[in-house]
Amino acid sequence: MFFRTDLALERRDIYKKANKLEEEIPGVLCEVETKEENKITRVEITSQEGEEALNKKIGNYITIDVKKINNITEKEFENISNLISDEIEKIIDKHISKQDDILVVGLGNLYSTPDSLGSKVVKKIEITRHIKKYLPQYIDKNARTVSAISPGVLGTTGIETLEFVKGIVDTIKPKLVLVIDSLCSRSINRISKSIQLSDTGIVPGGGVGNARLELTKSTLGIPVIALGIPTVVDVATITEDGIELWIEKLKEKGNKDVEVLREDNKYELIREALLPTELNFIVTPKEIDSLIDSMTEVLATSINNAM
Amino acid sequence: MFFRTDLALERRDIYKKANKLEEEIPGVLCEVETKEENKITRVEITSQEGEEALNKKIGNYITIDVKKINNITEKEFENISNLISDEIEKIIDKHISKQDDILVVGLGNLYSTPDSLGSKVVKKIEITRHIKKYLPQYIDKNARTVSAISPGVLGTTGIETLEFVKGIVDTIKPKLVLVIDSLCSRSINRISKSIQLSDTGIVPGGGVGNARLELTKSTLGIPVIALGIPTVVDVATITEDGIELWIEKLKEKGNKDVEVLREDNKYELIREALLPTELNFIVTPKEIDSLIDSMTEVLATSINNAM
Amino acid sequence: MFFRTDLALERRDIYKKANKLEEEIPGVLCEVETKEENKITRVEITSQEGEEALNKKIGNYITIDVKKINNITEKEFENISNLISDEIEKIIDKHISKQDDILVVGLGNLYSTPDSLGSKVVKKIEITRHIKKYLPQYIDKNARTVSAISPGVLGTTGIETLEFVKGIVDTIKPKLVLVIDSLCSRSINRISKSIQLSDTGIVPGGGVGNARLELTKSTLGIPVIALGIPTVVDVATITEDGIELWIEKLKEKGNKDVEVLREDNKYELIREALLPTELNFIVTPKEIDSLIDSMTEVLATSINNAM
Amino acid sequence: MFFRTDLALERRDIYKKANKLEEEIPGVLCEVETKEENKITRVEITSQEGEEALNKKIGNYITIDVKKINNITEKEFENISNLISDEIEKIIDKHISKQDDILVVGLGNLYSTPDSLGSKVVKKIEITRHIKKYLPQYIDKNARTVSAISPGVLGTTGIETLEFVKGIVDTIKPKLVLVIDSLCSRSINRISKSIQLSDTGIVPGGGVGNARLELTKSTLGIPVIALGIPTVVDVATITEDGIELWIEKLKEKGNKDVEVLREDNKYELIREALLPTELNFIVTPKEIDSLIDSMTEVLATSINNAM
Repeated sequence: MFFRTDLALERRDIYKKANKLEEEIPGVLCEVETKEENKITRVEITSQEGEEALNKKIGNYITIDVKKINNITEKEFENISNLISDEIEKIIDKHISKQDDILVVGLGNLYSTPDSLGSKVVKKIEITRHIKKYLPQYIDKNARTVSAISPGVLGTTGIETLEFVKGIVDTIKPKLVLVIDSLCSRSINRISKSIQLSDTGIVPGGGVGNARLELTKSTLGIPVIALGIPTVVDVATITEDGIELWIEKLKEKGNKDVEVLREDNKYELIREALLPTELNFIVTPKEIDSLIDSMTEVLATSINNAM
Repeated sequence: MFFRTDLALERRDIYKKANKLEEEIPGVLCEVETKEENKITRVEITSQEGEEALNKKIGNYITIDVKKINNITEKEFENISNLISDEIEKIIDKHISKQDDILVVGLGNLYSTPDSLGSKVVKKIEITRHIKKYLPQYIDKNARTVSAISPGVLGTTGIETLEFVKGIVDTIKPKLVLVIDSLCSRSINRISKSIQLSDTGIVPGGGVGNARLELTKSTLGIPVIALGIPTVVDVATITEDGIELWIEKLKEKGNKDVEVLREDNKYELIREALLPTELNFIVTPKEIDSLIDSMTEVLATSINNAM
Repeated sequence: MFFRTDLALERRDIYKKANKLEEEIPGVLCEVETKEENKITRVEITSQEGEEALNKKIGNYITIDVKKINNITEKEFENISNLISDEIEKIIDKHISKQDDILVVGLGNLYSTPDSLGSKVVKKIEITRHIKKYLPQYIDKNARTVSAISPGVLGTTGIETLEFVKGIVDTIKPKLVLVIDSLCSRSINRISKSIQLSDTGIVPGGGVGNARLELTKSTLGIPVIALGIPTVVDVATITEDGIELWIEKLKEKGNKDVEVLREDNKYELIREALLPTELNFIVTPKEIDSLIDSMTEVLATSINNAM
Repeated sequence: MFFRTDLALERRDIYKKANKLEEEIPGVLCEVETKEENKITRVEITSQEGEEALNKKIGNYITIDVKKINNITEKEFENISNLISDEIEKIIDKHISKQDDILVVGLGNLYSTPDSLGSKVVKKIEITRHIKKYLPQYIDKNARTVSAISPGVLGTTGIETLEFVKGIVDTIKPKLVLVIDSLCSRSINRISKSIQLSDTGIVPGGGVGNARLELTKSTLGIPVIALGIPTVVDVATITEDGIELWIEKLKEKGNKDVEVLREDNKYELIREALLPTELNFIVTPKEIDSLIDSMTEVLATSINNAM
């Protein structure tokens, strides 16, 4: 099953729907919590069965859904960033102690707006590793240090993200890696509005059929926390959603024949239909520049507060 | 009839299909010419009847369709820019003499990538108006002079594009305005690949239901040539195309009931279905940054050669 | 007398020193006020005699000198922007009523960092003119409206700044223009640290021997408030300062012959010496990018608060 | 002796002048060649004596002086980039074979214009390492592969440049590193006009009193070629040059007492005089943005042709 989304909670929904499951997927736990206007969904994959069902590693996937992330008041900004910050802090504390050093890794391509989130967040992270070394008087000697890199993308460096990060991790020896990345979601509605945090690492480009070597504890030797927000969606999934809504509409209007159109593998059929015409696109909203700016502010503030 | 596209040739296709016309639309002429890999379509609206059918003013609409605009060889770049340059030169010559001054106006928002084409092209236009004034020895005294502005968008200036351009035109008194803008197309396939040139002026934001006061001979008092390339498409049209392709696919597979789904106003039904779920988005391809760079190079080179 | 500075208070110092004046220059008033760490100097030119002495128009020149503008605390930021904001409000109130519309004009070249201050500030101005027109319910009907433009520079538009601004002013008819510009100062120490506000308009490029037509009440027909901060200084003035300091140092060390080096027109001699060797440069500090960001934040915040 | 310049040929001049040497410095060889309008100076440091005199490592320092690098014709661009390309090729061939892989390292801070040269060049390097791995059919199997990184600066990553590069070198194991950096020169005339190539590695920040751990064969284990162009100069050296010129001018005018002002350690005296007044600045020309663009084009073209 190929999900076209990096979000664990979307994968769970798709899997349940596709398999007409009423109860929970074996090996998957899910809890939802509402805080003011925002919703936190905690999906935990607990066994290999859950791992295979969702094609995601065993571990925790926390998604914070917000109403919107741009054109918000200072108060809303604070609420959202506090929510994220708390979750980051908790998930880090599960894996390392308060003194342990962290390397922040911003994935993606600075020069491609929808893929620039990681690099832009890294630019705003408060770095302390060099202060501890050169100006130790300005920093609590037991405090954790933070460093940060933007490895860029294979096409402009010629170096796999894993090779790049591993080279730095082996040299500077942090105790945990926090990876920031743009995600792909199943629904255009989630773009810029769902913040996913997980402790299972990341497969760069994983959601859009372009997987590279994974950044995980097994490849890097230290825990890898991943933080991301959807910025793109593929046209075939948009079309599928549109068809679904349109069929509903036709049914409401009394068209009875329409049920015949519900096919199990509609996505593949649509994809097959779109492919020869090059409608096989990944798209992003027209307002992506200002959305990326807002996401950058929120994530950078949340990370700086958490560390 | 609401077309969701700025391209006259797409409107013609939609109108003919919607009205099941075999012959040409009354008041519309259309000619197609193929030059190597590229195709030039000349739509001329000759009467009010044609104007009403396509909701476009009487005049000429030339569309150059190219295979692609980025990652091309120098030779392909030259071919494409020569094609465009020739058409620009011809259309300008229809309206003014070789000595008459031109003002280039780049519409759009520099800080929103899919909408930044006009501003970026303007930055690369070879300006001569000030040279004629301050260094006349460096310029043929009979040569036309060129000036250029980027008025920005209403949201960041508070000034209508028409007011802005009219203010400058009334002050510096050029003989023709050449407007550059990002367009909206009906099909995601045309993004970055269809260059439309017309001599009927422009309605900023016209294609996406956000019309401002028009830039035309009747508002500015001088001929207005418009040059643009699609950079965005709306999700409802993508979905409609996808549904159309999917119905074809179902028919190929022997599903006979499917014909019942063909409804005249599918677009409106889809739009209605998408609206409440906020799927009512304008989108752009993930690669828009590099596409805009390529479009900018091609248009700027073409314009500079033509003037 | 050619001052190589846009700051009235520097010109006053230079003039007094050059003319060995103990008392005030006839036709010039000067008051200094200290607020916490910051200093406000109010130079008023009251007569033609003062105008000729300083080669600046009759009117008010307020300079706020701050310790620094980047890497400051939130509190310091607030203090500085409140100071500026108060002065802007007072100077505007002298010329127009609370309901009168304002056009903000950001001069300079967005693509040349030391000259990009005006364009960058304009991007952050809160624009209300279009809201009053399209969404009047969201705005007090007696409130002033604000619009804003960045005309760019002659080399990239072919249009004089005055022609450009006059075209817009004649069309949208604001009651006052607030011009933002990068300035040239006499001393590299003042770069990013002296905010000058005046009600006499501006001569774009005036400070660096590159004058264009002035933006003043006499050319635009409405009051012109100018707000600027030095971002560049010319090498000959740096050298002159250096020589002055070095002569002092030599004297301290007992070198008596050194007084002979004090020449009235040292600047011209230095300039003459530097010219053939192309040392005739305008320079800016290496850190100009981050300084411009800080100046932009401070000015945009101050202007938005004042209006 | 502290030189305030990264250019070996300037250090040689300063050393000779300071020590009133007529003949060559022991342990240093120097050859000058003129090609059309451009000049190539080859300084070779051959012994520890030369190393100590110039405070530069034993090895080759080739400087190509050009008339200018921006606003040049295509022909001039080609001449300059061919000159640089040939020298790069020769110096690489001295150290590795034609099949050996190269890592290009662009030093500096992308967000600080005068320091952004390295990062900007890297963005334009033609990368082949990933092609060899994923699309070997598109590349000659004996061809060298190229990869490239921009490590950023200590203040934004918390990681020393040496640690960063060493981490990558140890992981991907290239046979040679080509480092690109902005340099500091003694004279503002050389900014953007002197291209220095050396085979002795680099000390980031070396020229401006801000040395980090060196990138050399002894730290990285493979040859390190360095390529750079001056983009900044410090105010004290500008002032010193200005004083020198001014003294000449005074002498021409018949002032005999002036010779007394020639002091051996004028630089230190000036620096001491400037320091308390914070005139201790590093500056860059006002036009630095467009100069950096031109330098980037020339270096990227030269490197791509050489490899």
